[in-house]
Amino acid sequence: MKKPLILVTNDDGITAPGLRALVKFMSTIGEVVVVAPDSPQSGMGHAITIDNTLYSKKVKLSDEKDAPIEYSCSGTPADCVKLGLQEILDRRPDIVVSGINHGSNSSINVIYSGTMSAAIEAGIEGIPAIGFSLCDYSWNANFSGVGEIAKKIVSEALKNGMPKGTVLNVNIPKTDGAKPKGVKVCRQAKANWKEKFDKRSSPAGKEYYWLTGEFELLDKGEDTDVHALNNGFVSIVPTQFDLTAHHAIQNINNWNLNE
Amino acid sequence: MKKPLILVTNDDGITAPGLRALVKFMSTIGEVVVVAPDSPQSGMGHAITIDNTLYSKKVKLSDEKDAPIEYSCSGTPADCVKLGLQEILDRRPDIVVSGINHGSNSSINVIYSGTMSAAIEAGIEGIPAIGFSLCDYSWNANFSGVGEIAKKIVSEALKNGMPKGTVLNVNIPKTDGAKPKGVKVCRQAKANWKEKFDKRSSPAGKEYYWLTGEFELLDKGEDTDVHALNNGFVSIVPTQFDLTAHHAIQNINNWNLNE
Repeated sequence: MKKPLILVTNDDGITAPGLRALVKFMSTIGEVVVVAPDSPQSGMGHAITIDNTLYSKKVKLSDEKDAPIEYSCSGTPADCVKLGLQEILDRRPDIVVSGINHGSNSSINVIYSGTMSAAIEAGIEGIPAIGFSLCDYSWNANFSGVGEIAKKIVSEALKNGMPKGTVLNVNIPKTDGAKPKGVKVCRQAKANWKEKFDKRSSPAGKEYYWLTGEFELLDKGEDTDVHALNNGFVSIVPTQFDLTAHHAIQNINNWNLNE
Repeated sequence: MKKPLILVTNDDGITAPGLRALVKFMSTIGEVVVVAPDSPQSGMGHAITIDNTLYSKKVKLSDEKDAPIEYSCSGTPADCVKLGLQEILDRRPDIVVSGINHGSNSSINVIYSGTMSAAIEAGIEGIPAIGFSLCDYSWNANFSGVGEIAKKIVSEALKNGMPKGTVLNVNIPKTDGAKPKGVKVCRQAKANWKEKFDKRSSPAGKEYYWLTGEFELLDKGEDTDVHALNNGFVSIVPTQFDLTAHHAIQNINNWNLNE
């Protein structure tokens, strides 16, 4: 049987340990091609490069015999997927996986996530796609406990296909090498970031800000991704790119707009 | 009665004619404060600035007596909203309006849209928010036919409030100064972009790409935003930031993940 073709990307950049771990895991179940940003792209949301040129080059980051083909790209995660599908791969991949992100993309973080934007871009093209994130922001995070579950989720996705119009947002609790307790299919927890701007002065006296903030959970539900993660489980949120709030159409139709 | 406080932003930059038109329209119904990017940010999706410094300065772009307070910001549209709410405004705005974008944000374009990311950012903070886009990519687009309908939609939003967890994505057909036929509340049309990468060589011989593409409508429904716009109507899509595909949870629960 032909091995599945797996396109791997991320938003922390092609040298990030999280991507290297994902490449290693995916190489055991399919033929891997990597197209990933040449520099970190965290917080890029679903940005694409339309007013600037895009560069891409073949790179060699592993000396192993069956090392995957890898390309670095000057663009965003969404650009990497577009470029991979259109210019680099000679056939349609069976699945696109993004990550493993260094840090959580649960709850409202999905909106700001470059990791998930890559998965969503593939989903828009009708290709099964999964974003993986580990709830550990450290560059030296321990990904060793993640392999088994990541392989299982990807294998099930390849076997079952993806519900139409959805991709998966998978978050993994910080395990420091241990196996997570199990997997829960969840909804996105309601939350926001309580911003704090750290105002400073440059050496030349010009004022500037750093954006910081605190995560504020606004949801006590036990069916949310945050609840699963806080209890040691991997969360899977099926995530869609039809943003229509269908339930609100009737409400807006009662506004006085057409007289 | 106290005038409503209206925060205005966009993604084409603070000098864009679409923003100047929106400021003019909004000034007739409320007290306007502008916090907008100092340079164009199209295609930025929901990017935020976390690895870089943010600059902001007060600017004067109008000599009129009741000219609004205006700030330009070095960040993305989502940054502008965060900075406006947290640092610039001394009270919570009654509504945030973004645009008027030079070009359509209907259908799948909402995913890539900086205009809509500003509205969504406000929505996450629980503030009513509307993104406006005119289906005319020209810098010199004629916004004069848009004022009446933009004011009506904002007034109705102020009067009725917004359905929980939603913001409005308003697209206006190109009218060249005429009034649109009317307003339709719609769902987001299913579509994607058929990418084409235009491959070129720099003077130094280095290969690079321009991302281009063609919009491909995959939806014959008559209840979509694209259908409304193609028939001369303004489209309003209530848009949500809970991306959970609730209908898909049961399906994924049947995968073999926990044994």
